[in-house]
This record gives sequence, structure tokens and C-alpha cells, in this order.
Amino acid sequence: MQKLENRSKEELISRRKSLSEQYESYRRQGLKLDMSRGKPCPEQLELSEGFFADTKNLFTEDGTDCRNYGLLDGIKEAKALFAEIFGLSTDEIFIGGNSSLNLIYDLISKAFIHGLNGFEKPWCRLDKVRFLCPSPGYDRHFAITELFGVEMITIPMNDDGPDMDMVEKLTAEDDSIKGIWCVPKYSNPTGITYSDSVVRRLASMKTKANDSIIMWDNAYAVHDLYEPSDKLLDIFSECRNAGNPGRIYMFASTSKITFPGAGISMMASSRENIAHIKKLIAIQTIGNDKINMLLHVRFLKNAENIRSHMKKHAEIIRPKFEAVNEILGKNLSGKGIASWKIPKGGYFISLNVPEGCAKRTVALARNAGVKLTPAGATFPYGRDPKDSNIRLAPTYPSLDDLRKAMEILSVCIEIAVSEKVSA
Amino acid sequence: MQKLENRSKEELISRRKSLSEQYESYRRQGLKLDMSRGKPCPEQLELSEGFFADTKNLFTEDGTDCRNYGLLDGIKEAKALFAEIFGLSTDEIFIGGNSSLNLIYDLISKAFIHGLNGFEKPWCRLDKVRFLCPSPGYDRHFAITELFGVEMITIPMNDDGPDMDMVEKLTAEDDSIKGIWCVPKYSNPTGITYSDSVVRRLASMKTKANDSIIMWDNAYAVHDLYEPSDKLLDIFSECRNAGNPGRIYMFASTSKITFPGAGISMMASSRENIAHIKKLIAIQTIGNDKINMLLHVRFLKNAENIRSHMKKHAEIIRPKFEAVNEILGKNLSGKGIASWKIPKGGYFISLNVPEGCAKRTVALARNAGVKLTPAGATFPYGRDPKDSNIRLAPTYPSLDDLRKAMEILSVCIEIAVSEKVSA
Repeated sequence: MQKLENRSKEELISRRKSLSEQYESYRRQGLKLDMSRGKPCPEQLELSEGFFADTKNLFTEDGTDCRNYGLLDGIKEAKALFAEIFGLSTDEIFIGGNSSLNLIYDLISKAFIHGLNGFEKPWCRLDKVRFLCPSPGYDRHFAITELFGVEMITIPMNDDGPDMDMVEKLTAEDDSIKGIWCVPKYSNPTGITYSDSVVRRLASMKTKANDSIIMWDNAYAVHDLYEPSDKLLDIFSECRNAGNPGRIYMFASTSKITFPGAGISMMASSRENIAHIKKLIAIQTIGNDKINMLLHVRFLKNAENIRSHMKKHAEIIRPKFEAVNEILGKNLSGKGIASWKIPKGGYFISLNVPEGCAKRTVALARNAGVKLTPAGATFPYGRDPKDSNIRLAPTYPSLDDLRKAMEILSVCIEIAVSEKVSA
Repeated sequence: MQKLENRSKEELISRRKSLSEQYESYRRQGLKLDMSRGKPCPEQLELSEGFFADTKNLFTEDGTDCRNYGLLDGIKEAKALFAEIFGLSTDEIFIGGNSSLNLIYDLISKAFIHGLNGFEKPWCRLDKVRFLCPSPGYDRHFAITELFGVEMITIPMNDDGPDMDMVEKLTAEDDSIKGIWCVPKYSNPTGITYSDSVVRRLASMKTKANDSIIMWDNAYAVHDLYEPSDKLLDIFSECRNAGNPGRIYMFASTSKITFPGAGISMMASSRENIAHIKKLIAIQTIGNDKINMLLHVRFLKNAENIRSHMKKHAEIIRPKFEAVNEILGKNLSGKGIASWKIPKGGYFISLNVPEGCAKRTVALARNAGVKLTPAGATFPYGRDPKDSNIRLAPTYPSLDDLRKAMEILSVCIEIAVSEKVSA
């Protein structure tokens, strides 16, 4: 098929008429599909059906009563489970509540008010705090730094991770750069995994500020869709080897393993950092929900069992990623108006449309009953400078709904582009 | 029996010898009793044995899947349950995670960094922030304000609540006074309940600062030990009537109803305040654990059922409060060296020993295997100006252990006082 720009005016008019008709017919169906967030579908939740199988005895192996107060940093078994998954030691781990996002927010909040281990002063006392934001990235990260008044600097996101030349240069030169947001495996939304070289450079780069941290949101650590899965280099070893053990704060949760919003979360960092922040957290809470930790450990057992549990997740959602690929491919490939790539894991497909067409595409889709992540959300301040990136979250809708949504989206993209071309 | 001061030197020496012998014999037993925190005992936890009875269907009545993301402020049923208990409307309520302390910390944190509804600026931008701290009070409250650099002003605690003349005067005159800590029912640790007059004066008092708030930690709202229970006036109605609906932030949790540290928590305030803070919390988390909310609602059902559930708690712990009273009375009454009062609810007995004797008493007890709350903890900065208040938490130990601990404590008090007298 010809590229749009090469068509005659008549062809374009006729194509637009046909697109309008298709769009109207979809719109009249009054669909209501939500593809805006990375949300597991009901079939995935059923995989954790046996979660409450053993609630009789709520004691840990060492006799801790999970029904009563105590243990600020979580039960041993939960720390051991995450330690096994990530190759860490248990004193590098803090077990949180139901939300790793909350742990992340809380860390930034404490960095601002109280300061973290090794900080000369809390960030709130500084004139300027900047964060590097590889983009497209995770909107909720950017929302946190925006709320705290951080100046966010967009870093281009490549297929192997953030543009490290730029990251290294800025971090070495500017002591107001206090951190970088990373979703290092199956990145939200581009789906790429940071290369070994990128991980090593992050771990070893010179930072002008000595309170510059890496926010390592390892949200999709075990969320593979295909074998062989992407392998993410262990940044903890790299940081230790580079003499920067305190630079890294990692986050993960079981939200997309067991129950979204009713799982357990974890934060990992150097022993010293964890010991320091525990003193601050001790003022905030007596501890997180140990019953939920215990039930999680009983259900998930160990890293190997988690891997096989995650294979079942993959079997449910892989066909959805492939349906997106198939329908967008059928409708749009060769037209030069959309590019995307099916990731090897995670929850998103990052779709790029021609400059200036993302917002319009998302608005058209919404008007036809398909709710997508707002265009721009994947960039700092919600502003995509090119207005071209759209995040697709294919997991929640049924396969049928998803296919329908992708047909509609295809039409919306073509309309948006043709409006742009003829404008 | 004679008061200590009136005894002859010989009597004192002989009495001290006998006390020393008793103390040594206790010490040699190598006891290990912890009475430092208000912690339910295992028998109380058994009362929630049926908690996990129905985990098959995890949907709310309106079809919300509690296993998946969503609902920032909690499920309807949980809001309705707390609304019933406190006579509030559901849009005045936010359901939190497993810890009301965390909600409290979080509110103070947000007041400092972002500002709450109606604030001209966040407190971190002010030169000075002061809080009124009725004392003896709750050490964890004071620890939060201390962490945030708040200057804490001790307010004497009377039998009907804080000294309101002082509270009103300071609050009307000083615009750096931004709040007051209150545990209004069965106060921690004195066990008193604020009188109607105190509640009305708090609700209606003139504040020089228009961002001055009442931190109303209603931790023991349904935790009665005796009938008729203390009745706490509804401060929400009073605040509304006085034209100060936004002044009050209330907190509660099910920690001492179901499982300590694995319950659900709530914050209540005016509609406008809750709507405002929800916008801030939306950046922090997607929502709290809805499965735990649903299981709580199913188990606790309604306010009436909670009242009858709490009667069972009272049956278990009331004898412990009475044992403290009995043994301290037997050993110490008439000696003029200790005063205490059994509260009508809550978790603590506040014990006063002669000036300068609390720290020594607690140290002696600890050395004999009885761990008490550190002396001074019930005052701002951990400093009891008279060194005379000791908080007893009688609920966790078994009745036998508790009786033994009270015998030891009696000896420790007498030793501490006799050391002081002869010093």
C-alpha cells in the first residue's frame, strides 16, 4: 500500500470518507473498553485462587505471630523470598505494604524532608532538585517528582535503555541532579530491557552530587512473556564492584503476581541505607501486614515456583500482545504511520504515530469507547514534545474486546494522520 | 503502714534489706516479661478466628473486584462501617492500610511538604511550627512531631482532658501553633475520656493560625472495659456547629479489634479536606488493600456486632487491669509512693511515683526481667519533667505473669523511692 503522503487528493478524500464511516459505525456500538492501565485480567486473578488455602496457623517458622504487632521490616520468610529472586541478602531488603508505588513515594518524600543515608541535607533545603526521566517512561514516577517540585529532564529512551552518554554527562556536571527513574526490565511503556552496558554505566558513572540515587523500579522482574526471557544484569553487584553500593534503591511487588493492590511490596538497597531508613520508618509505622506476607510466602513458595506461576500469567496475556501486533500490522503496516514492537515481557506496548497525532488519536478512540492512557502521560509533565507516543495496555480486556479496540484504534490513527496531512 | 518519710533510719535500713532480698530473688528467676506496648494477648487474637471464613467471593456488593487495582479511598462497605460507628457520612472517610499511625504520619508529612486543604503554605516553609502535646500522652505521636522538627509544648492532662484554659490561650495568641495531639477516649496512657466541655471548647476555640488542626486519634473508640462505658461527644458535629468543620482529622483502626498490624485503618475529616487529600494520595498509591477491607467488613458486619465482639475482648483483659489494681493496692496503698487509676477502657494504666523515681523504677524492673515503657516516653522529647510517670500496658502478659510483674514492680518502686529518700 502507498504511503499516505504519496496519494492523490481524490484517493485521500475517498479514504477519509471510508474511515469516517467505519469510525461512526464503531462509535454507534457504544463500546466501553478500558486499556488505560496495566491491569491484570480476571483470568490472571484466578491463578491465585489457592491463596487463602492455609489460614489456620498464622505463625512464621521462628514462631512470630503474624496476627500481632511487630517486625518493622517484615517476616524473615518474605525477605528470604525476595532475596532469592534478586540475589540479595535479607538485610538489604525491607518488606512494605500493598503498594511498591507507596514505598517509592515514601522514599522520595523522606529524601526531601529528612534526607536519606549519606545525604548532607534533605533535598527540601536545596534551591533546585533535578531528576533524569528516561522517556517514554512511567507516568506515576513523573507524577511523584512533579508533586515534589523536582525539575524533570527528559532523557531519550533507546532500545537498550536510557541514552547513557547524556545521562553520564548531565550527572557528572550538575550537582542538582539527584536521581534517575528506571524501569529496567520490560520498561514501562517501551518494553525494552536495559543492556548490561547500560546497567554497568549507571552503576559506575561519576555523579557530581553525592546524594544522587537510582530509582530502580523492577516492577516486571519475573513478568516474562517469551522464552528465552530478557536477562537484566544485577545492578547491586555492579554498584558494589564500582564502589557505589549506596546509589541503588530497588522496588518490586507481587501486585502482578498475585493480587493487584493486595500484594506485598519490597524495597532493597545497601545494608547501610536500609538500616538508616528503617530508623525513619520506625516513626511512621509499627510494621506492615505480616499476615499477608505469610500467606504470600506460603502461596508463592520460592523463586522457581514463581517462575512457573508467571508462565501461567504469560499464557493468558501473550495472545493479547500478539493480537495487538496482528491487528495493527494488518491495518497499518506499510503505511508509515505507526510503529510498535511486541516486548518479551511486562505489561505494555509502546506505539508511535506521526508527530502531532497522538493526542488526536487518543481523543478519537475515547470518543468511540476505547479508553487509552492519555497521550503525553509517558513524558515528564504529561507533555510529549512530539505528541507521538501512545501507551497500550492490552492485558485487562478480553481478547475479543481487545481485537475490537485495535480495529478502532487503527481507524483512529489513520483519521488523525489524514487530518494532519490535509491540515 | 507509715509513710516512708516518717520512718526511723533503722526501720528504713531494715526495710531496704528486705526489699533488696526480694528483688534479688525475683532477679534470679530470670523472668522475661514485656509490658512495654499496648499489645493484645493471644487469647484476644483467637476472637478473630473466623476472619478468613469466606474468601471464595472477593467482590463487593456493587461488583468491585477486590483482587484488582482501584478505589483510592477504599470500598463502600468499609466506609459505611466506619461511618456507622462514628456517625459520619462516607465522603468524610478515607480507608487506609494496616496502620492508622501511618495515616497520621502521612498527614503530618503532607502538611509539611504540600500543605493540607485551606493552608496558605506548607508548614515546611514556616520558621516555626508548634504543636500542643497534652501529657502524659502517646509517645508515637510525639515522635512524629519531633521527627518533623516541630516544637512541642507540654499541656497538663487533667481528668477531663487537656488543660483547656492553657490550650485556648496559646492557640488564640500564637499563630505558630498548628495542631494538638489528642487521644480523646481512654487516653493513652491516662485512660481518661475528654469531657463534653473539653470537646466543645476544642471544636469552637479561636485559633490565631487558620491552618491549626486537631489530630484526633480515636484509637480506643469501641474499646470499653466496663459498662456503662465512657461516652465521647461527637467532635465532628461540634466542629460543624462552631463553623470549624475543617479543623478535625480523626483516625481509627481495627488493630485492637481484629489483628494488630493486619487490620484496616481510617481517616475522617470534612468532605473538602478528604477530597483535597485524596488528590495528594492519588500520587502516592493506587489504593489500599481492598481484600483486607472486604474480609473485615464480612467479619465485623456492623457497629452492634463490633460492640459485642469488643465485650469479648473486655472479658479477657479486664481481669488484667484489675490484677494490676489489686497487687499495687496490696503492696503500695497507704505508703504515699504511688498513685494510679483503673480506666474504663483502652489499653493502659498510668502510674505516678514520687518525683525523680520513674526512671530508676523502670531500670530496676528491667534488670529484674520486666520490660516497661521507658520512663519519660509519655512526654514530649521523652522527658518527663518530674520523672514520675510510668505507663503500664497490662494486656499482653498472661494473668500469672502480670501478677508476678506487679509484685516485682511494687518492690522496684519501693527501692527507687527509698534510694531517693536516703540520697
